[in-house]
Amino acid sequence: MAICVPKGYRVAGVHTGVKRDARKQDLALVVSDRDAAAAGVYTQNLVYAAPVALDRERTPSDRIRVVVANSGNANACTGQRGLEDARTMARLAAEAVGAEPDQALVLSTGIIGAYLPMDRIGSGIASAAAMLGSDEQSLVPAARGMLTTDTVHKLAGRTVTIGGRQIQVTGMAKGAAMMGPNMATMLAVIFSDAPLDKLSVDRSLKAAVRDTFNCISVDGHMSTNDTVLLLANGAAGGEPLQGDDLAMFDGALEEVCVDLAKSIPADGEGASHLITLKISGCADRAAALQIAKTVANSPLVKTAITGADPNWGRIVSAAGYAGVPFDPAGVTLHVNGFMLYQAGAPVDFDAKAVSDSIRQNRDTLIQLAFGEGPAAARFWTTDLTTEYVRLNADYHT
Amino acid sequence: MAICVPKGYRVAGVHTGVKRDARKQDLALVVSDRDAAAAGVYTQNLVYAAPVALDRERTPSDRIRVVVANSGNANACTGQRGLEDARTMARLAAEAVGAEPDQALVLSTGIIGAYLPMDRIGSGIASAAAMLGSDEQSLVPAARGMLTTDTVHKLAGRTVTIGGRQIQVTGMAKGAAMMGPNMATMLAVIFSDAPLDKLSVDRSLKAAVRDTFNCISVDGHMSTNDTVLLLANGAAGGEPLQGDDLAMFDGALEEVCVDLAKSIPADGEGASHLITLKISGCADRAAALQIAKTVANSPLVKTAITGADPNWGRIVSAAGYAGVPFDPAGVTLHVNGFMLYQAGAPVDFDAKAVSDSIRQNRDTLIQLAFGEGPAAARFWTTDLTTEYVRLNADYHT
Repeated sequence: MAICVPKGYRVAGVHTGVKRDARKQDLALVVSDRDAAAAGVYTQNLVYAAPVALDRERTPSDRIRVVVANSGNANACTGQRGLEDARTMARLAAEAVGAEPDQALVLSTGIIGAYLPMDRIGSGIASAAAMLGSDEQSLVPAARGMLTTDTVHKLAGRTVTIGGRQIQVTGMAKGAAMMGPNMATMLAVIFSDAPLDKLSVDRSLKAAVRDTFNCISVDGHMSTNDTVLLLANGAAGGEPLQGDDLAMFDGALEEVCVDLAKSIPADGEGASHLITLKISGCADRAAALQIAKTVANSPLVKTAITGADPNWGRIVSAAGYAGVPFDPAGVTLHVNGFMLYQAGAPVDFDAKAVSDSIRQNRDTLIQLAFGEGPAAARFWTTDLTTEYVRLNADYHT
Repeated sequence: MAICVPKGYRVAGVHTGVKRDARKQDLALVVSDRDAAAAGVYTQNLVYAAPVALDRERTPSDRIRVVVANSGNANACTGQRGLEDARTMARLAAEAVGAEPDQALVLSTGIIGAYLPMDRIGSGIASAAAMLGSDEQSLVPAARGMLTTDTVHKLAGRTVTIGGRQIQVTGMAKGAAMMGPNMATMLAVIFSDAPLDKLSVDRSLKAAVRDTFNCISVDGHMSTNDTVLLLANGAAGGEPLQGDDLAMFDGALEEVCVDLAKSIPADGEGASHLITLKISGCADRAAALQIAKTVANSPLVKTAITGADPNWGRIVSAAGYAGVPFDPAGVTLHVNGFMLYQAGAPVDFDAKAVSDSIRQNRDTLIQLAFGEGPAAARFWTTDLTTEYVRLNADYHT
């Protein structure tokens, strides 16, 4: 569970003034002292922001040196000027650390439809570059530099020994939370000193994201800026990982991604519960995931958990409209380990005990089993509270 | 806009005691004095209630005489006994009006997972049968007999002259609102004195539902009991309608369905706005409808309207993740007639004027135009308020 800066990286987080509160960092740099292999996974939204366009062009790569992230302004829906600003931001970050302009990747989050305040971004990059460090005193401000309305910074890490080399995988993320009068964005940067070729970085990241960041939702609204980046700079030494060694790295990467991904709904706006859904017994993984997403996004399921209500009807009926065929007589449901529904019918259960277990724990586990096949999926979401509505509706009043 | 009982029908609504409040009707009868052609459209949920199973078996039909509806108990997830209870309820209603047992259809809504209190249902049917009438003093209690947490009863009607005959189409509905610790259901019964054959009733109802009841959502949760029934008993006289005459009937039927369908989100739990979405310029209707549904079900779009926030970003980005390909540069958005976004970019607009127009009207119109083709769709939904969350989360506290 070691969370530290991997070998060959320096990081920093500063306040540039894009956010009003001077105590809040709003710009972060992650710098590799040598060329790193890098890959990205991006929002599937047809309406995507300028930084996503830039990073898509530049990844996968085997020569990235710096990631610059800002919060407070998402540089989305800003047209040609937005693209130029993203390019300038990348160039400034690259120049500040002695790299080529195209060796930088960019992340932005915050309000949309407004141009980046390039003067503040520029001076922020300069001061961040002057503060780069490889200790925790640098790592936490860097992680904070990409936050919007998150209540806590999100860091995760794993140290693994692979073929005698100690390898570090560290990640930072921001949650799907609202910013000003605008929209949700999920960002993550994972960086490692593992030696990996470009192709492996791309494949490993896609595999890890599939079962982690792509298995969370807060409100089902997909942002214009969602991005997960992975950098691997090889500072741990040795030849690029292959075979079992690569599989060991992938295991550590997935653990870091699980930690970061879960931390997002856990810190969802107004959330009072982190809900883990485990769907099993489906014909294939796509079916299991579709059921998981449908149950996770049902406002009636979410509000039932908010109210500590062991409402099997809402959960089973949400599965029923997921668009996936199944035999209702094969459905069994557990909530926090209590069986509520078995083989297609409700069973007697201690409603007060289940309700207490929901109310007294921040984590709720919903297990829904079908009789269709061997496939399973895991998904994380939040409940839905009056506080969520207040945060997203009432900021003008 | 005439709302009256069509020729050849009598109706009644009574309190049986399934609902606790003695002032609230919880059982309704709609009786035709002759065999009526009848059809139904039912929930697509794989987990469906006993009354849905029964009505599916019996429709389309050309010999229905009675529809019996109860609220307070949905007879869902009740297994074989639930099916037998639905059959008994149908038989009791048929016997009470001198019809054969299989000439009755059944609707139930309310709590799920509990058996119908058949003694109360039986005595309720008997007293309703003794009170049948064809005036407004009978119609309103009948409409109220199928309500759950609806705040108003929902009636609509049209009178049309077709080939010299005066034809009446009248409908009653209940909304997608929550009941006790349970789930949302939408029910409607539309009854007409038009002469229609079984095939026409089925086709006309399916066409009308497609563009009305299937184009509304409150929270996207599809119930186990959703049902729309259409009866046509021919009491207006003449041969079954065909060709242009049938098309005139279909027009009146669709108007009644629009009125009823809109009344459901308009009375959604905690709703402060009825949102009408008009999507145009799509390649085909399925694409337009998919975008409409995605925007309608976005909690961020809903809460923006709650907060009177002209937030084009949330609306455009929701369209962007609908899974329908489109050129973002072809998107134009109006809210309440104000242009917020044109040809892929935000435009200058008077934010206060738009916000005032949202705040000061219960109806909000969102028009989203694309440049992909000629197809359009219309959809109705509600906003999302703290009151919705309170109603659905806090009933145990």
